[in-house]
This record gives sequence, C-alpha cells and structure tokens, in this order.
Amino acid sequence: MQQTRLDTARIRAARQVIDPIFLDTPLYRCEALEPGLGCAVSVKLETANPVRSFKARGTELVASQLAGHGPAAVVCASAGNLGQALAWSGRGRGLDVTVVASRFATVAKLDRIRALGARLELVDGDHELARERAAAIARHDGIRLVEDSLDIETCEGAATIGLELADAAPAFDAVLIALGGGALATGVGHVMKALAPAVEVICVQPLGAPAMTHSWRQRRVVTTDSTDTIADGVAGRRPVPAVLDDLLLVADDAVLVQEASITAAMRMLLHHAGLVVEPSAALGIAAVLEDRDRFAGRHVVTIVCGSNVDVDAYHRWVGAAPVHRP
Amino acid sequence: MQQTRLDTARIRAARQVIDPIFLDTPLYRCEALEPGLGCAVSVKLETANPVRSFKARGTELVASQLAGHGPAAVVCASAGNLGQALAWSGRGRGLDVTVVASRFATVAKLDRIRALGARLELVDGDHELARERAAAIARHDGIRLVEDSLDIETCEGAATIGLELADAAPAFDAVLIALGGGALATGVGHVMKALAPAVEVICVQPLGAPAMTHSWRQRRVVTTDSTDTIADGVAGRRPVPAVLDDLLLVADDAVLVQEASITAAMRMLLHHAGLVVEPSAALGIAAVLEDRDRFAGRHVVTIVCGSNVDVDAYHRWVGAAPVHRP
Repeated sequence: MQQTRLDTARIRAARQVIDPIFLDTPLYRCEALEPGLGCAVSVKLETANPVRSFKARGTELVASQLAGHGPAAVVCASAGNLGQALAWSGRGRGLDVTVVASRFATVAKLDRIRALGARLELVDGDHELARERAAAIARHDGIRLVEDSLDIETCEGAATIGLELADAAPAFDAVLIALGGGALATGVGHVMKALAPAVEVICVQPLGAPAMTHSWRQRRVVTTDSTDTIADGVAGRRPVPAVLDDLLLVADDAVLVQEASITAAMRMLLHHAGLVVEPSAALGIAAVLEDRDRFAGRHVVTIVCGSNVDVDAYHRWVGAAPVHRP
Repeated sequence: MQQTRLDTARIRAARQVIDPIFLDTPLYRCEALEPGLGCAVSVKLETANPVRSFKARGTELVASQLAGHGPAAVVCASAGNLGQALAWSGRGRGLDVTVVASRFATVAKLDRIRALGARLELVDGDHELARERAAAIARHDGIRLVEDSLDIETCEGAATIGLELADAAPAFDAVLIALGGGALATGVGHVMKALAPAVEVICVQPLGAPAMTHSWRQRRVVTTDSTDTIADGVAGRRPVPAVLDDLLLVADDAVLVQEASITAAMRMLLHHAGLVVEPSAALGIAAVLEDRDRFAGRHVVTIVCGSNVDVDAYHRWVGAAPVHRP
C-alpha cells in the first residue's frame, strides 16, 4: 500500500514506552451479544485501566518524550478522554498539564482531569473552539501542543491496539473502529493493512458528527457547521488533512449511524456483555445493528474505546431512570 | 506455614493449561473510588472474558483432565458462574456437561449455561440441594462430579489470580476476597502466604450467608439453616471441612457485611469505576465501607470476581429504575 505517516516498527517500539497497564487489553468473544446481531462478535476492551479509555497509549508516548528534559509543560484540547490520559501520563512524569475543553463536555471527564492534577480551562463553545484555544495557549506560553490525531504519537499509541488485534487475526474478518479525529482509525487501520490485510477496516461515525466520513467519501476535507450527537468523544467538525490522507489509505469503509442505534448498542452492551460504555464505544455495535445483512455470519471485532460517562445520562440512554444517587 | 492442600508449583503449572483468555486479567488503580473509601484501591478485574467470572480458571483445569480420554461427562452444582464456566470449558473439549442449579438462581446465569450447550437441571431449593442432586447424578451415571472449593482444581484455578497479584505486590498491603465455598479465598490466600506474606488476606462474606465466616472464627464447621443475601455466588450453608482447614491457614481475617453495604459498593463501582458487578464482586468494597478506619491510608486490592447479573435486579440495586427493555 501507499505509505501512511505511520511506521510499523515505530509502533512496535512504542510498546516499550507505554505503561504496560494500558497494553494487552482483553480481547474476547462475546456470544451473548450474537443472537441480537447475527454475527460473531469479539470485544477489544480499552476501559479497564486507570483512565477508562485507550487514549493513554498515545499520551504515554508524548509524556515520555517531554520528561527528563527539565521542567516541561504541555497543553491539549480534549472532549475529556485525551485530557484525562494526558493528565495521568504527565502527572507520573512531573509535567505541567493544561487541558482545554468545552464547558458542555461530560462532567465526569472534567472532574477526572481536575482530580489528576491538570489545569482545566473551559471554553464557551464546542471542541473546535477548544482546539483553537489550546493552540493559542501553546503559542503564547511556548509549550508543547498535543493535537489529537495530527500528532503522530496519538496515532502510534492507538496503533498498538492494532498490533494486539493482528496477533489474534485471522480469527476475525472485520474490525469496527470509532471514527472521530482519526487517530484510532488510522492507527489501527495502518497495522491491519500491514499485518492482517484480509481484515476489513470499517470506521463508524455518528450521523450527527459526520465530517470525517464525508471527507473520506469525497476524498477531500469536508467540514460541518455543528455537531449533534451524544457521542462526545468523536464530535469533531474540522478533519485534519494529513489524517484524512492516512484514512484514505487504510479504511475500507466509513459508515454513519443514527443516535437511536448508538443507544440501542449501549443497551445491548450493558444487558448482554455487562459493559458500561460511552457512546463512542458503542458505534461498532450500532453499525452492525444498522446493517445486519452486511455482517451476517461474519466475525467482527469492535473496539470498546472508552467508558467515561455521566451516570445519570447513561441511565437515560440505556433506559433506566435514576431514582437516587450514591 | 502449615501445608494447605495447594501447591505453588502446581498452581504455576496450571497457567499452562488454562486458556490465556482467562489469565493476566487487568489489575489497576482506581483513584476515582478512593475519596469515598479513604484508602488506595486497585481492582483485579475477572469479568472481561467469555464467562464474565473467574470460575473458568478452575474449569479449564477440570475439563483438560477429562478431555482426550474418549467421551467424558461431568456434572456440577452451581449458583451459575461455575456452571457457565464448566459449560464453556467442556464445550471446547467435547465434554457432556450437566449443571444443577436452584430454580431461584440468577436468570441470566441459567440462560448462559443453556446457551453454551450444557444440560441444565433445576432443583426446587437452594444451592445445598443442588449440590446433593449433582452428587446423586454423578453416582448414578458414574461421571465426574465437580465440587466447587473441594475439588483441588477449582482452588488451583482461582489461585492463579494469586500469582498475578503476587507479581504486583508489594504495591498493595491487603487483598479483599469474596468468601463463599472458599476456592477463591484459599487459592489466592495460599499464594499470598507463599509469595507475598506481608499482604493481609481478608475474606468477606455477607451477613446473610455467614456459614464459612462463622466456621473460620470458631475453627470448626458451622452450618446455617438458610441464607438471605443478594450475593447469590457466595450463598452456601454447609462449609466443606477440608476447605475450612485450608482457610484457617491462609486467611488473616473473615468479615461479614450488610446487604446495604453490598448495594452501596455496587453503586460506587458503577459510578466511579464504570463497572457492572454482581453482588459477590462488591463484597470487598463493602468491607471497606463498613470499616474505613481499618483501611485508612492503606492500599487494598479487591478481586472483582463476576459480573453476571439480571439487569432489572441490578438497576434496582444500584438505584436506577428500568423504564424499558432492549
């Protein structure tokens, strides 16, 4: 294939830098989901770690680079998971971490960012405004800006999931990947194309935040004016050109799913897998729900990429009304 | 220490027999739980596998022994998790598996046992009646009876969790273990005493099913006439003498917790760790909730041993009312 920005040898080397607590995550068949989906389903579970998402695979690389060279500071924009992961990785290495987020972000994510000792700045707008503000802080303070999906470390970190999946191929024949900025999709997709090319790489995005999918389909950057989805982790509006270029090389398909499918998928994962997942992590199952014929009789892996939810909202999504709080 | 029935070398060897999908499970610090508990807390997560509990570590050993010697059949009594695990391990090795359970058992567990192809027989009584019936079937049919906690393989399988914990010691100084029949407690306890003797081994049982704890305290088998707990996985009434003997050698303490503490612990694990757990898996956190002073400033590991719940009951326990089903 044509060259993406990623390099398989560098991704293998990344495993040596990332705290093992984020590596070699569970990958297992979940048969209880299968009658409702009509295909074999395996789960790659990225939530059983200190930050409850895959993002620390990438922030471990960033933080390791910055550490050991005297006092260092770093800033990122985040819907919450990248910020939490950067706060965790930075804290362990004495970095000064600033996270910029939308004030509409998931409260639980913001709380965890603060609890991990990062400086949190909220903007009165969406994730794209947070990106602008983070870039301004980096310029003003002369510190490292971590740009999710653009910075190669965020893709390489995510790509280590691909190595773990490739070890399990050819047990499965398609991998379903949440598509937002594209770090997860291009990282995992690169490794699949390099090491397990028979596996179909399918990216899944909400209909309410379709910019990258539209861009992939039209082979040029397409932006949107707004987003409207509960899947906060993938709700970008302005795809990064270099990431789109990579995605065009590694994705076999990009599909859009409805909000009702996302909540139905979250409910299935709770009822039949015992998993609390955030909306972005349910996109893969949502894609199967919307196109059972496509997947009938096949074996798919879905990457459950995060579990950071506000519990009251979660209860509404999965159809249980909270009656009191702990 | 005096000799238990377990042997550390045999436990190490067991790792070679057990499907790796059940081994090397996540072990991670969960700081979001800590403000509410007043101590450092790590989770050893035994739910991210095809049977959603630790029990397959033991049934893999049993099934491996039986396989390869012509047609083989096996029967066990189970509250649900052992049966599900035996069904899974037996299916992969062509064994004929029968599970005897109480008709009051968790429906989701019974459904999974059937779905895995085992024969399920329900008795009109509690787990002790199921044990009697399973023994009768084994005698009548001349087949292998798997007795949880008595059969050394069930303890050795559970003990492999101890090896994984010992690798992480001395990061923590106490391990909290759900106590039912005693396989998990004696297995993990044995390894802790052998390899990490500074770690306090604390067993936790519901006040509503206290037979083994009373037996441990009185150093003789104490039975009860009934049980009254939502923690179905540990609701035995008749401790096995040989298991009690082992428990007396490896447990530093055995504590009883109230039902309200179990549900509060389940709620905390949902809200602050994003984990759906069955009541037995919340016993460790419940013990901390009931005795914060004891654990203040310490680092505990709690083994989250299972996540098989009926979702409607789960919603009631954690304080969310189901409004509709998937």
